[in-house]
Amino acid sequence: MFESSLEEDKILAEKVLSGIMPHIGNSLRIGITGVPGVGKSTFIESFGKYLTSLGKRIAVLAIDPSSQKTKGSILGDKTRMEALAHDPLAYIRPSATGATLGGVSNKTREVMLLCEAAGFEIIIIETVGVGQSETAVKSMVDFFLLLMLSGAGDELQGMKKGIMEMADLIVINKADGDNKLASKKAQKEYQNALHLFPPSDSEWQPRVTTCSAIEKEGLKEIWDLIEGFKHTTKKNRYFQTNRQRQNLHWMQEVIKQELEAHFLRHPQVSANLPELERQVLAGDIPATNAAKALLSIYKGEQEG
Amino acid sequence: MFESSLEEDKILAEKVLSGIMPHIGNSLRIGITGVPGVGKSTFIESFGKYLTSLGKRIAVLAIDPSSQKTKGSILGDKTRMEALAHDPLAYIRPSATGATLGGVSNKTREVMLLCEAAGFEIIIIETVGVGQSETAVKSMVDFFLLLMLSGAGDELQGMKKGIMEMADLIVINKADGDNKLASKKAQKEYQNALHLFPPSDSEWQPRVTTCSAIEKEGLKEIWDLIEGFKHTTKKNRYFQTNRQRQNLHWMQEVIKQELEAHFLRHPQVSANLPELERQVLAGDIPATNAAKALLSIYKGEQEG
Repeated sequence: MFESSLEEDKILAEKVLSGIMPHIGNSLRIGITGVPGVGKSTFIESFGKYLTSLGKRIAVLAIDPSSQKTKGSILGDKTRMEALAHDPLAYIRPSATGATLGGVSNKTREVMLLCEAAGFEIIIIETVGVGQSETAVKSMVDFFLLLMLSGAGDELQGMKKGIMEMADLIVINKADGDNKLASKKAQKEYQNALHLFPPSDSEWQPRVTTCSAIEKEGLKEIWDLIEGFKHTTKKNRYFQTNRQRQNLHWMQEVIKQELEAHFLRHPQVSANLPELERQVLAGDIPATNAAKALLSIYKGEQEG
Repeated sequence: MFESSLEEDKILAEKVLSGIMPHIGNSLRIGITGVPGVGKSTFIESFGKYLTSLGKRIAVLAIDPSSQKTKGSILGDKTRMEALAHDPLAYIRPSATGATLGGVSNKTREVMLLCEAAGFEIIIIETVGVGQSETAVKSMVDFFLLLMLSGAGDELQGMKKGIMEMADLIVINKADGDNKLASKKAQKEYQNALHLFPPSDSEWQPRVTTCSAIEKEGLKEIWDLIEGFKHTTKKNRYFQTNRQRQNLHWMQEVIKQELEAHFLRHPQVSANLPELERQVLAGDIPATNAAKALLSIYKGEQEG
């Protein structure tokens, strides 16, 4: 229903959201990102199983840019996290990305709230760290975890700039076998680098740790660190103010996305957009003028 | 004229922009950021004087968040860079920030194009590295320079996350007197840290260097590095494609800002906004519902 485009579904969705407001906010929201190949699915499965072994109810939501083409990949997600998918304490749900320019689903947040109202204590939001989605994820979670490898070469190639500075925790995955020593070395290097970053107003000093998702090692340490973060930020009230700020930010985001979508749906705008984009790319006309031409078309229609 | 809100001025401005399109694009656009206290004005003055001593014509534009209150600080800027202000090869111009939510001027870019058409070869765009303006600056320059201090403590406090990963060059300023050794040490630490960052698609490996703006030391090295960047990125065509991408991005930005401004100017929207924001902050209503309430007010009026 929350992903439906039907008007009546939308109205019902709004009512449901209002109704659940008193029941949300007790969860911990964890964003997990990392480029393909870093072992994200295996990590989430192992970490998720560790959490359910503690009796926690967890929900895993995915913001997957590729699902823009495939229209969601529920089956794919469930297959790649089979053990977790069959765990009665766990719920796995991929979210299709919306059609806005930014390319980020505006439904994931609503699904997250529903999961919280349904009693899930830990919400994991997974994203591929290559596009714009991780900024969106950062703006809806309490804790942001970045998965890396010890190689520090290949996976950096595809990674989006700025992600490292957003992380509350960097986990060097695949710290097993021959890779153990290199992972410890990478841990030290990243820890040194993080000290040079501007501090967050959460007063939390971002950490670096190692783990082996396959060998199920290092999972408790990760959870301890996350609990430490929660303790620190609830005490200094960053946790609460951050969520307030995120709520306000979300309101602004929805407005922006809707204004943009309304604009792009305009028949004359969408008809003229490709040619104007071509001219701007070629340097034939100033970007401002192209923008203003489209805006006059849009506003002219509205006023006429 | 470009900062005027009058309709006739806007139309004229559009015509002027179209007219100058063939004359732009030959400049080098350098963004310079750093938190207050890092010695930004002194650096730009010394570096600017070095460039004019090479016979270069330079323009210095400022995106200054504080000018939102003071409505521009031309006098202030000219006073703090006195030697440069009196240099016939230099032009110093602060830009007032616009009234959009993002808080970033959408006129700086136009003024930059005008400066290029007027024959300025190097455009320096200065911003305080504490808010959202540096992302806007990054999206309109070829080269992004971050000023830091060796202390690595105090100035990090105020710095915005993500800036370090945007930098093409980090300059440790105030590398003079007793501070020289500490600056060299900081240089090494930052250089190590930068190797752990995802690489830019410019194929340029970000550098760290030291300088003393007051003693006028290290300026040539900085200019050599910038010229090296220009050489590399013109050869691999990143320079050109980056500008094309920036043009397209700018078109999208202007559209977004105008749509937002039009929305916020709506009398019923602005009347209802504060109360809805309060309720969202308090967690009384879902962010999505507040957004949709405002959007119905806005659209209702347009269609009615």
